Amino acid sequence: MPIPSHIEQLQTPALIIDSGLLDGNLSTMATHLPGGQLRPHVKAHKCTELARLQHELGHHGFTCATIREIEGMVAAGLGDDLLLANEVLDATRLGRLVADGARVTVAVDSVATIEAAVSGGIREVLIDINVGLPRCGCELDDAARLAELARQSGLEVRGVMGYEGHAIGIEDRATRAGKVAESMGILAAAHQIVGGPICSGGGTGSWDLNTAANEIQAGSYALMDTAYAKLGLPFATALTITATVISVNRNGWAVADCGLKALGMDHGNPSMLDGSSVWYCSDEHIVFSPPDGAPLPAIGERVSVLPAHIDPTMAYHEAAWVTDGTTIVDRWVIDLRGW
Amino acid sequence: MPIPSHIEQLQTPALIIDSGLLDGNLSTMATHLPGGQLRPHVKAHKCTELARLQHELGHHGFTCATIREIEGMVAAGLGDDLLLANEVLDATRLGRLVADGARVTVAVDSVATIEAAVSGGIREVLIDINVGLPRCGCELDDAARLAELARQSGLEVRGVMGYEGHAIGIEDRATRAGKVAESMGILAAAHQIVGGPICSGGGTGSWDLNTAANEIQAGSYALMDTAYAKLGLPFATALTITATVISVNRNGWAVADCGLKALGMDHGNPSMLDGSSVWYCSDEHIVFSPPDGAPLPAIGERVSVLPAHIDPTMAYHEAAWVTDGTTIVDRWVIDLRGW
Repeated sequence: MPIPSHIEQLQTPALIIDSGLLDGNLSTMATHLPGGQLRPHVKAHKCTELARLQHELGHHGFTCATIREIEGMVAAGLGDDLLLANEVLDATRLGRLVADGARVTVAVDSVATIEAAVSGGIREVLIDINVGLPRCGCELDDAARLAELARQSGLEVRGVMGYEGHAIGIEDRATRAGKVAESMGILAAAHQIVGGPICSGGGTGSWDLNTAANEIQAGSYALMDTAYAKLGLPFATALTITATVISVNRNGWAVADCGLKALGMDHGNPSMLDGSSVWYCSDEHIVFSPPDGAPLPAIGERVSVLPAHIDPTMAYHEAAWVTDGTTIVDRWVIDLRGW
Repeated sequence: MPIPSHIEQLQTPALIIDSGLLDGNLSTMATHLPGGQLRPHVKAHKCTELARLQHELGHHGFTCATIREIEGMVAAGLGDDLLLANEVLDATRLGRLVADGARVTVAVDSVATIEAAVSGGIREVLIDINVGLPRCGCELDDAARLAELARQSGLEVRGVMGYEGHAIGIEDRATRAGKVAESMGILAAAHQIVGGPICSGGGTGSWDLNTAANEIQAGSYALMDTAYAKLGLPFATALTITATVISVNRNGWAVADCGLKALGMDHGNPSMLDGSSVWYCSDEHIVFSPPDGAPLPAIGERVSVLPAHIDPTMAYHEAAWVTDGTTIVDRWVIDLRGW
C-alpha cells in the first residue's frame, strides 16, 4: 500500500504514532529496565513492528495475552522467549510452535492448566500466583503443590508470575507503591517456594516501584493513554487518532468520525488534544464542543482524539500510521489482533 | 476453513449466532415492515451473509455507516440501493462504486458535504435533519437552502433522513413513543420542505412506533443485545459469545476468556446467560461469580456471555459461528469491519 505523505491525506479515523515520542518512551524504559529486566507486553500495542523496536533495544523476551499474539510474534521472528501470561485449556497451537523451535512458556494456576500444557506439547511454565487482583493465579498455599505436579509431569518450572493489576492504576504514588509492595511480598514468597530463575510481574504503573519482580511486564508505556497519563509517569502520549470533522451545529457542537468502533470505551470517553469537551461517542461519531471561548471547528478540519484505554483501542484498527511529527514515514499493521 | 461440528470445539472467545432465533427476528420484522419499509442497518452486524438473508426476505435497500460497509455490500452483490446514513468529506471511493453501477445515496447536512458528494461522483443524496439528537443533521430551517443547493449542484435529492437516537433507547414505551413522535414531527416538516420520495429514520427501539418515516433503519433487531433487551421488544437475543473458564478461585470467583477486546463496553459490562454476576472485564478476561447457591463452574467449562452493545462487539470479531441450536452449520465472516 502506498504511504500518503501527510496526515491530512489519510482516510479517517486513523491511528497515528509519533515516532519521536515513541522512541523516547522506549528509551526511557530501556535505560531503567535494560535487557531482560523488561519483558514487554505486546497486548498493549498488538504490533510486531513496534515489538521489533523493543527487541532491537535489547528486550528479547516478550509477554503475550493470547495464543494469536504468540503465533504472530513467532511468525515475525520474535519468538526467542515468549511468555503467555494467561491460562489456556487447549495448548495444541502453542505446542506446534514449540515443536518448530520457538520458546513458549505458559502460565498455569491449576491441575487442569498443567494437564493442558503437557498434552498440548508445552515444555516450560510459570506458576501464576494471585497477588490480590481477583482474576487468575493460584493462592499462595497452592503454589508448592502445583509446582511439584508440573515438575512430576515433565514440565520445566521457570518460576512464578503475578500481576498486581488492582494496584497499578492507583493515582497516588505512595498508595500505589504500598499496594505494589504488598502484592510483591506474596509473589516473592511464592518464588521462594517454587524456585526457578523467573519472578515476573508489574506493568507500566509499577515500572519503577516493583523491585521484587526480576522482569516487568509493561506494555502501555510505549504508546500510553489518558488513563495512564494521570499517573504522572515519564512516558509521553505517543498515540492519537486523527478524525475528520464531518458536521458542525450552530448550537455549539461538532461531530468527528471517531466512534465506539475506533476506541476502547471501558475507561470512559476519550479526550481531545485541543481541550474540547467530549459529549459522547456513538458507533462512528464523537460529539464535542470547543474549549470555552474557542470557535467551533470547520467542517473537514482534522482533530486529534486521545483514547482512554489503549489496549482495546488498538484491537479495533488494521494499521497505524507512523509520523516524524510532520510527515508519515511508515504504516504498521496491527497484526496481533484476534485469537 | 473446516467448520467444527460443536461449540465445544471452537477456539474461544467466539461469536455464536442461533439461526432459529435470528430467523424469527428477521421474520417478525419483515412481517411488520415488509420490503422497502425496512432499510436494514448493516452497522449492527457488519456481515454480508446476514445482510443476504435480509435481502432474500425482500429488503433490497440497506443503510450503512461507513464507506467500507458500502464497499463490502457492493462487493457482495447487495448494492441495489445503499444509503450512507452519515456525512463524508471525501466521497471518491463511493463515486467509483456509482460509476461502476452501484446505487449509493449519501446523507448531507452542509454546504461542504454537498460539495464533497458532487466532487466525489455521488449522484443522489438525502438531506440529513437534526431531529433532537445532538449529532449530525442540519437544523430544520436550513433544509430548504441545502436541498436547493444540492439540486442546483446537479444532485438528485431523494428526500430526508433523521435519526431519533436520543429517543430510541428510552425504556418506558409511552415516553419513548412521545419522544419519537416529537422527533418525527420535525422530520415530517423537513420532508414537506425538501420533497422527494424518501423519509428515512428510526431504529430497533422505534420499529413499531415510528410511523412518520416511510423506511426504518433498524439493525440491532436481527441479533439484539442486553441494552435493547430491556425494551421488551419481540426480538430474541440471537447472539452470544462462548468463552472457556480458564481459572477458578476457591474464594468465590471464576475467570473466562472473553474480555474487553471481544466486547463493546460503552453500555457497561456484559451479562452471563446462566445469571452469574459479572465483576469486571479486563483485556482478555471476564471475572464472575455464580448465582446465589450455585457452585463455581469447572475449569474448561463453556459459558455464554451476552454483550451489552452489539455494534462495537461485532467490530472486534473476524467471524461468527452459526448454530441450529445443537450443531454448527456455518461460519460467517464479519466482513464489513474497518473504514
